[in-house]
Amino acid sequence: MSYPEFPGPLFTDLYELTMAAGYFDRHMVDPATFSLFVRPHPRRNYFVAAGLEAVVDALVRFQFSDEEIDWLAQTGRFKRDFLAHLSTMRFTGNVTAMAEGEIFFPDEPVMEVTAPLIQAQIVETYLINTVGVASLMATKAARCVHAAAGRPIVDFSLRRTQGSHAGMAVARSSHIAGFSGTSNVLAGKTWGIPLSGTMAHSFVTAFESETDAFEAYANLFPDSAVFLIDTYDPLQGAKASAVVGNRMRQKGHALMGVRLDSGEMISLSQQVRRILDEAGLSEVKIFASSGFDEYALERLIAGGALIDAFGVGTRMGTSADAPYLDMVYKMVRLGERNVRKVSEGKITLAGEKQVFRKTAADGRFLGDIIGLRDDAPNGAEPLLTRLMENGRPAGPMPTLEQIRSRFAGNFERLDDSHKRFTDPQPYPVVVSDRLVALQKEC
Amino acid sequence: MSYPEFPGPLFTDLYELTMAAGYFDRHMVDPATFSLFVRPHPRRNYFVAAGLEAVVDALVRFQFSDEEIDWLAQTGRFKRDFLAHLSTMRFTGNVTAMAEGEIFFPDEPVMEVTAPLIQAQIVETYLINTVGVASLMATKAARCVHAAAGRPIVDFSLRRTQGSHAGMAVARSSHIAGFSGTSNVLAGKTWGIPLSGTMAHSFVTAFESETDAFEAYANLFPDSAVFLIDTYDPLQGAKASAVVGNRMRQKGHALMGVRLDSGEMISLSQQVRRILDEAGLSEVKIFASSGFDEYALERLIAGGALIDAFGVGTRMGTSADAPYLDMVYKMVRLGERNVRKVSEGKITLAGEKQVFRKTAADGRFLGDIIGLRDDAPNGAEPLLTRLMENGRPAGPMPTLEQIRSRFAGNFERLDDSHKRFTDPQPYPVVVSDRLVALQKEC
Repeated sequence: MSYPEFPGPLFTDLYELTMAAGYFDRHMVDPATFSLFVRPHPRRNYFVAAGLEAVVDALVRFQFSDEEIDWLAQTGRFKRDFLAHLSTMRFTGNVTAMAEGEIFFPDEPVMEVTAPLIQAQIVETYLINTVGVASLMATKAARCVHAAAGRPIVDFSLRRTQGSHAGMAVARSSHIAGFSGTSNVLAGKTWGIPLSGTMAHSFVTAFESETDAFEAYANLFPDSAVFLIDTYDPLQGAKASAVVGNRMRQKGHALMGVRLDSGEMISLSQQVRRILDEAGLSEVKIFASSGFDEYALERLIAGGALIDAFGVGTRMGTSADAPYLDMVYKMVRLGERNVRKVSEGKITLAGEKQVFRKTAADGRFLGDIIGLRDDAPNGAEPLLTRLMENGRPAGPMPTLEQIRSRFAGNFERLDDSHKRFTDPQPYPVVVSDRLVALQKEC
Repeated sequence: MSYPEFPGPLFTDLYELTMAAGYFDRHMVDPATFSLFVRPHPRRNYFVAAGLEAVVDALVRFQFSDEEIDWLAQTGRFKRDFLAHLSTMRFTGNVTAMAEGEIFFPDEPVMEVTAPLIQAQIVETYLINTVGVASLMATKAARCVHAAAGRPIVDFSLRRTQGSHAGMAVARSSHIAGFSGTSNVLAGKTWGIPLSGTMAHSFVTAFESETDAFEAYANLFPDSAVFLIDTYDPLQGAKASAVVGNRMRQKGHALMGVRLDSGEMISLSQQVRRILDEAGLSEVKIFASSGFDEYALERLIAGGALIDAFGVGTRMGTSADAPYLDMVYKMVRLGERNVRKVSEGKITLAGEKQVFRKTAADGRFLGDIIGLRDDAPNGAEPLLTRLMENGRPAGPMPTLEQIRSRFAGNFERLDDSHKRFTDPQPYPVVVSDRLVALQKEC
């Protein structure tokens, strides 16, 4: 199930429609192939593919309604015959793509679309936007998972994502990348992602005392409570939690954890751990959430913070250190002609492509080759597979859990040297000789 | 008309629901007031309010469907009586807010919600998300408008916004902030925002030559064509444009402009201007778009670029230098008690508030006072007005053009010293004596 629903073919840049009118006027109906790829990024050494579920749903539904055609007509920009063409147009093309959960690198096509020129052109804006936001967030989340070094990590970003679509994309993409849950209830309902969350400061302040708030919550959620302990003073909050936690135990229940949401986390978590341990509550977990991202998680763990699980929010959910990918969609073939753009500093590889990955005997990724579709480098595995055929899905879509497993397997096979945040080792990607030769021909 | 449609009450963090269950269990039904405000931001000296249209729409529609209640029931987390309460719940509260297009400052409430505790709590996530993204983008766009110093500026960000909701919010918010148009066709249809856009590099590469592409386009759009001239070589592109432009003139039409999308813009725009002028086409405009933001616009104009209008995309549409606001929603009153949170470094002002603005005789903004609702500082104008009353809109909503005019008037009244990007003058905001005194009582 994809979210949000495809907003329709008018979710596009005007120039997609004016160009389409130009192609139509000149009877340019040859099939065109466009490559979707990400240009090198100073703060990202690898990317995680996501967003295909929504793409397939959109391309299957792709259709202008009568109301949309009427609206386009009254803008006065378009001729009647062109609008008649749009009104009956469906997406009938072929799409190859890397599976969701695949790891990819700069300049590697993550998707190629082959369709009659107008169709292939007109879906550009939607494809970049949708695959872009999903992959951006999966990539950011993977970095957080790497930094958490095996500790559970949960998506708390919903309130500060850039809108509702992003909030949903973050929940889904972060789950693909290994997050154990999300606070986003609608994502839980939509995709079955485990939900997480207990109380905010407002809950604590709504009661006469912190202890009253904890008691009220424990009464209702006797086996899943996590008390937020920093509304007033976190050490006092830890002590109040210990008192209530011991009362819960006497009733046959167990306090699950306490949560810190502000302050200096390393010493604070150590002090809270001591308070809980001295109260005989060594099984009570310490959760923390406080403007974390991968850099903060790495620092906290290296510094000896005694935190059992992390909630990460805003900085993850907006990919704050890199809030966009330079994802582009470029025409690489039209009819029988391979084409490319050569503007200053922005080279595009012409031709229909495949990405091949070489792996070691133990499964470790060794390097990729960007080649022609019919290249066959020895022992390397092609990563782009058929997603749509003549406008229809080429096969059943994987479940979210299958995608999550795929990513986990891939991520283990990517050497840690490529994952570190400072001076990561560039992953080797080469262009095949035949693809190089083809560039000289066009 | 708001976009996207309200995704429903499950678009929320789980803890809003678990807290609500806690309040319900303890029969805590007193009205609560929450303040929505933004904490100080190192890169933003002022903010622009937006997003209210969607908020009113959502609060009027706020209702759990039977299907949503059934789904919540099967999670096993909630008691039957609480779910029965949710199933009949509507938003019946009062909301005061700054109008869209109002300029506001850190710590000033941009909205206050007063409703029975559960209702006021449960809308938190949605309100922060929606007002947050709209205001974030209006603020970023206002900075770009300031930098463009009167030149027209257009939103080209749709493909790289963080999802579809953000793409729509950017188009609407940037229009409020003074952008003259957008490339986003759906935003044009939804709100009547003027549309802009002509061709991409793929259009040029789809033809045998650049001149062929320009001729084809001119034939179809003889009075609104803007040729993209940097697919191969921008100076050659300018010369080809001049040839085609003169042919258009001979037919009684006129080339509107050329567009640069890469390269060193200052000298390039000067060279292109010379080519066009020497061809007798001094009325042909130069448009430019190339990863611009407010900093780049300021630099280009200061450096003497001969650019008549700007397209700004990704960096504006993701607010890349500040991709989130620290917007929070804090309980400030419950029943008869003023409440506040005092966690380390995160102080909240208790009590129901009003923001008053002092202006000079010539209209210039002099400073604000955050006070109690019944404060009446001499000659200062209250900025929060009644948006909803007992769950219904308090009056008709302004049109987008009215909002845009409101912002334009406000922005002119804000001194340039507060708008500059380096070392801006902080705008004076004080807390009233009575509001200070109230803090000591709680």
